[in-house]
Amino acid sequence: MKQLLLLSVAPLLLAAQAAETDVAPQTPADVIAATTADDWRPVAPENLLVMTLQSGEAIYIELAAIFAPVHVTNIRNLARAGWYDGISINRVQDNYVVQWGDASERKPLPETIERDVPAEYEFDMTSSHIGNFETVQEGNYEPYSGYLNGWPVAHSPREDGQRSGTLIHCYGMVGVGRGEDPDTGTGGELYTVIGHAPRHLDRNIALVGRIVEGIEALSSLPRGTGPLGFYEDAEQRVPIATVQLASELPEEEQPRFEVMRTDSDAFRAFVHARANRTGWFVRPAGAVDVCNVNLPIRRMAAD
Amino acid sequence: MKQLLLLSVAPLLLAAQAAETDVAPQTPADVIAATTADDWRPVAPENLLVMTLQSGEAIYIELAAIFAPVHVTNIRNLARAGWYDGISINRVQDNYVVQWGDASERKPLPETIERDVPAEYEFDMTSSHIGNFETVQEGNYEPYSGYLNGWPVAHSPREDGQRSGTLIHCYGMVGVGRGEDPDTGTGGELYTVIGHAPRHLDRNIALVGRIVEGIEALSSLPRGTGPLGFYEDAEQRVPIATVQLASELPEEEQPRFEVMRTDSDAFRAFVHARANRTGWFVRPAGAVDVCNVNLPIRRMAAD
Repeated sequence: MKQLLLLSVAPLLLAAQAAETDVAPQTPADVIAATTADDWRPVAPENLLVMTLQSGEAIYIELAAIFAPVHVTNIRNLARAGWYDGISINRVQDNYVVQWGDASERKPLPETIERDVPAEYEFDMTSSHIGNFETVQEGNYEPYSGYLNGWPVAHSPREDGQRSGTLIHCYGMVGVGRGEDPDTGTGGELYTVIGHAPRHLDRNIALVGRIVEGIEALSSLPRGTGPLGFYEDAEQRVPIATVQLASELPEEEQPRFEVMRTDSDAFRAFVHARANRTGWFVRPAGAVDVCNVNLPIRRMAAD
Repeated sequence: MKQLLLLSVAPLLLAAQAAETDVAPQTPADVIAATTADDWRPVAPENLLVMTLQSGEAIYIELAAIFAPVHVTNIRNLARAGWYDGISINRVQDNYVVQWGDASERKPLPETIERDVPAEYEFDMTSSHIGNFETVQEGNYEPYSGYLNGWPVAHSPREDGQRSGTLIHCYGMVGVGRGEDPDTGTGGELYTVIGHAPRHLDRNIALVGRIVEGIEALSSLPRGTGPLGFYEDAEQRVPIATVQLASELPEEEQPRFEVMRTDSDAFRAFVHARANRTGWFVRPAGAVDVCNVNLPIRRMAAD
């Protein structure tokens, strides 16, 4: 395999080797290796969904509770009620989205679900509780794109002089399907991005989280051949066994993840290293798209 | 399925319906429907590779002969020699690339193959034969990104006062794997992008084409679990039956594709429509990333 690795287009291993000399600039792997515990924040168990397919494969989703609190409350309540158990993946559109929900469209929602959801597509960037924004990129859809509290966020001036923020549709982000009218997404229909960031969806639909592990089980599914990538036959749908909130599991069974803090020197060094790749690269880009940062997320051993 | 379509996140069908009224702005589908034959250019048979997997699935690749002529000549010669027949897909890295080549690393190259290939990663934008550049986006990696002769291209000022162009690593673009030294990619190892555009690879490796049909057969493959997404076991590799140049096939068997011309009013209208989506969208983006244009490419009936 040695020669094949040499021929690869993203020689992380080679880059890591080159960095062993004192003079080499930091690689993304170097930055991660040099972090301390303070450079990471845990994913709270009440913000972690565990979706298990009938095949046994598991997908872990962090919920963006601070950005879409009503939607996230609905999703937590649907998970607690076992409502998602037995639904299916119904749509896989190449370079776009995987979508799952109740294919029968007849499964009644629990009483706890808010049906008149606000359009949580944008938020006030000046809210003091959100944290510090770290700019990664200027221009391209929004004046500023970067990270806020570990989430990809963009912001623009609003008419009232404040700044309006929005989560960004990067690869692996999770949103709530809705009908033609805004405010119609209950949380019973979810999707994730499996292609180049469709940023035209930003500010048009509620993003509620991101996949922190297991996206391969979704992104490698056969593409649907119907309109918009829907599976044409019921037997093509991929059954979902259970969707559980980690906080509802016994503590010793709760999966633990950590996300690199994005208002930190470590994150700034990581972005710089991603923008200025060394080793195999002959001409570092000097910049990185907000959706190409590949924010470090790590699985922790159980306590 | 009606309600499911309503819940979808990309209601192309709904948008197309809305456009039936006189007042609705043009949708991307409207623009395509209004094109004439002059708005399209054919894919030349000598620039079309047909890669057939052992499973029978076919992938069609247009070669970018004007941008990487030495690499493309090598690839044509490898196809003519049947060199690719029996090789395999060896690497599938999520949100990054699918890569194929000779896993044994011992298959001798034909005599016709140029081994000392130039680094065709950049080109002079002022070359008169290339055509007219259409800007789609300013900033983000390069001052200008857009389309040139139907290809995603970016350009920057050079020290000599000219402008240096480069093909862009959009989803579905095809490149030639190389070793640590530039100029080492013979064409025996190819890759395609299956995730968010890794534009840090631009100007660092030779792009030689793009998939015009059949990428689903690659993007839905199981992800490799080895370093960099390589398959760990030989039996996981996906065998490639044949790779043929369309111009070597009997004329009546040659697949025919057309690409929307990008120095045209039709293309400008298409980009505008992609940037300003209507119908389901509550807040059109007003902009579109160069890799989110989704340039129209169509399969034509045989003569």
